[in-house]
Amino acid sequence: MSYGLDNLPYASVVGPDGRRFAAVRYGDAVLDLGLVDAALFADGTLDRLLAAGPDTWARVRADVSALLQSGGLELAPLADVRAVLGFAVADYVDFYANEYHATNAGRIFRPGAEPLTPNWKHIPIGYHGRSGSIVASGTEIARPDGVRGPGDVGPCQRLDFEAELAFVVGVPGSRISAAQADEHVFGVALLNDWSARDIQAFENVPLGPFLSKSFATSISPWITPLAALGEHRIDDFGLDIDLAVAINGHVVSRPRFRDMYWTYAQMLAHMTSNGASARTGDVFASGTVSGPERDQRGCLLELTWNGTEPLTLPDGSLREWLKDGDEVAITAAAGAITLGEVTGRIVPGS
Amino acid sequence: MSYGLDNLPYASVVGPDGRRFAAVRYGDAVLDLGLVDAALFADGTLDRLLAAGPDTWARVRADVSALLQSGGLELAPLADVRAVLGFAVADYVDFYANEYHATNAGRIFRPGAEPLTPNWKHIPIGYHGRSGSIVASGTEIARPDGVRGPGDVGPCQRLDFEAELAFVVGVPGSRISAAQADEHVFGVALLNDWSARDIQAFENVPLGPFLSKSFATSISPWITPLAALGEHRIDDFGLDIDLAVAINGHVVSRPRFRDMYWTYAQMLAHMTSNGASARTGDVFASGTVSGPERDQRGCLLELTWNGTEPLTLPDGSLREWLKDGDEVAITAAAGAITLGEVTGRIVPGS
Repeated sequence: MSYGLDNLPYASVVGPDGRRFAAVRYGDAVLDLGLVDAALFADGTLDRLLAAGPDTWARVRADVSALLQSGGLELAPLADVRAVLGFAVADYVDFYANEYHATNAGRIFRPGAEPLTPNWKHIPIGYHGRSGSIVASGTEIARPDGVRGPGDVGPCQRLDFEAELAFVVGVPGSRISAAQADEHVFGVALLNDWSARDIQAFENVPLGPFLSKSFATSISPWITPLAALGEHRIDDFGLDIDLAVAINGHVVSRPRFRDMYWTYAQMLAHMTSNGASARTGDVFASGTVSGPERDQRGCLLELTWNGTEPLTLPDGSLREWLKDGDEVAITAAAGAITLGEVTGRIVPGS
Repeated sequence: MSYGLDNLPYASVVGPDGRRFAAVRYGDAVLDLGLVDAALFADGTLDRLLAAGPDTWARVRADVSALLQSGGLELAPLADVRAVLGFAVADYVDFYANEYHATNAGRIFRPGAEPLTPNWKHIPIGYHGRSGSIVASGTEIARPDGVRGPGDVGPCQRLDFEAELAFVVGVPGSRISAAQADEHVFGVALLNDWSARDIQAFENVPLGPFLSKSFATSISPWITPLAALGEHRIDDFGLDIDLAVAINGHVVSRPRFRDMYWTYAQMLAHMTSNGASARTGDVFASGTVSGPERDQRGCLLELTWNGTEPLTLPDGSLREWLKDGDEVAITAAAGAITLGEVTGRIVPGS
């Protein structure tokens, strides 16, 4: 079955009575983690689990599995609960770790120059994003306003998505080596780094993206523990995960996470290599996942080549960029392990 | 007297018995704010005060003032307590809002090009920093490691300070107009945005500063409420504040905050103009405060023109950049209103 014993992602959920509890998904139902460890999940969040570290992560996963196999449990139907973000986001970093994406973006944004900057293969390029703008899948995304050029202020006219994976830090640390990454990273979520390309083009030099990204970032509430992905690893820290991006139910791209240049372990190592600490609840995202083929590109910037080659949707309409009412859904799977989805619908701004 | 009734900054402090309490500074003593409002300060922090908004800010300030004037209070000697950060930092944004600094940095980093980028006078340029790296004044600063160029990894060799003011958000909001800023901003702190110039030069393009800033950012624990600065405003949101930067006790620069191009109100308005929300505990900093004269430049990058014109300290030693053991102290005052200091001493890294 889908979401079987080898899967078991975590979230917080709100039940029909409004009670919030930490839960694990099993098939089309959820198990209240309070039945597994009342103290660890007493506050209804995953915060203490995240901080507790790999031994506890393994113990809880084993206990959940045993409890589910023992049967006779009262599980809540998934349809009766609403999944919400299960942890407090500390710092949020967005990397730029896919060579196809970075190359395409370089060609589009800096025509005539080398598409990859000289640093790109030496360090995982990234920047800090806005933690307070991270919202759970399903939250409506208001079209941002901004400065699109000198004296040109108004709603974003080039609104984009970016299909990414996000990694959730459990155990704090500093100067973490890549080899130690799994002692610190709890699991994986799906992330949509909504991007306002017109605002970005105007603001980006010299200090990088700011308001073009900070209006909203959507994340899947269900966190798949790294422990579920053991069979889908490549060379220690690569992950063989297939993503799919749909606009209004129509799949427009199928990026593959195996096509990433930098691994999540390298990202975490870089992020803490200067002495900075990582905290419980830190989220670092991969950057747009893209591939060598057009239908593997993880954002409209690349898919429509900056709006010059529109996509045609099944209803015959064209998309250079997202329109109000459009819903973007990013899903992912590693073999039979489903990573869930992150969705968001564009609504008019102010 | 210094730190009189017109001043009254806030912090959390830890007493000799290890108890943490919210406090206001008065002269060389501190008043336990629990004596003013037991409920508001029950957790020993300023978090609830920040969120409570301008009416409460005014009421608490008036009550503190009345209580201090009534006399007979038991105040703790300042020397007996240790000031700590009084609130949980949510998101941290660092602006780049001083034209002298941006022009100098442009000349140094992008020689031959226009020093100011085309966007600079249209929007307050800024970027998100690392909240988890914000430390209280007095915390030792470990020299960061990093990639200084292709294959060149090691301790930062061009370590710098940046003298800035930081603004602390109290009341949450979105799409805040500049005119509404004082309904949201609680007060002002001093901030040192330590910067690793070699790491910065290598990583900065295309996504901006990352590890060159994220190792540590020092902030003064004492927050001066905007209410204390009323007489020192210029044109509504300008602030007539004089800063001084000392290395090992020797003043090397006296930047003036009145020389800023963008006001804190414009920064907050810009930060939330795209629909992003500001949260209680958000910190946004001004960027380096510099002026037209050499001895008004707020960082070594400018003071030594990227290391080419070293400073001579009173002991005869030269400084292109900070050496291990150097202590940087930034102080500030608006007339008789003292904004305290932010200090940090460089120690060897890993």
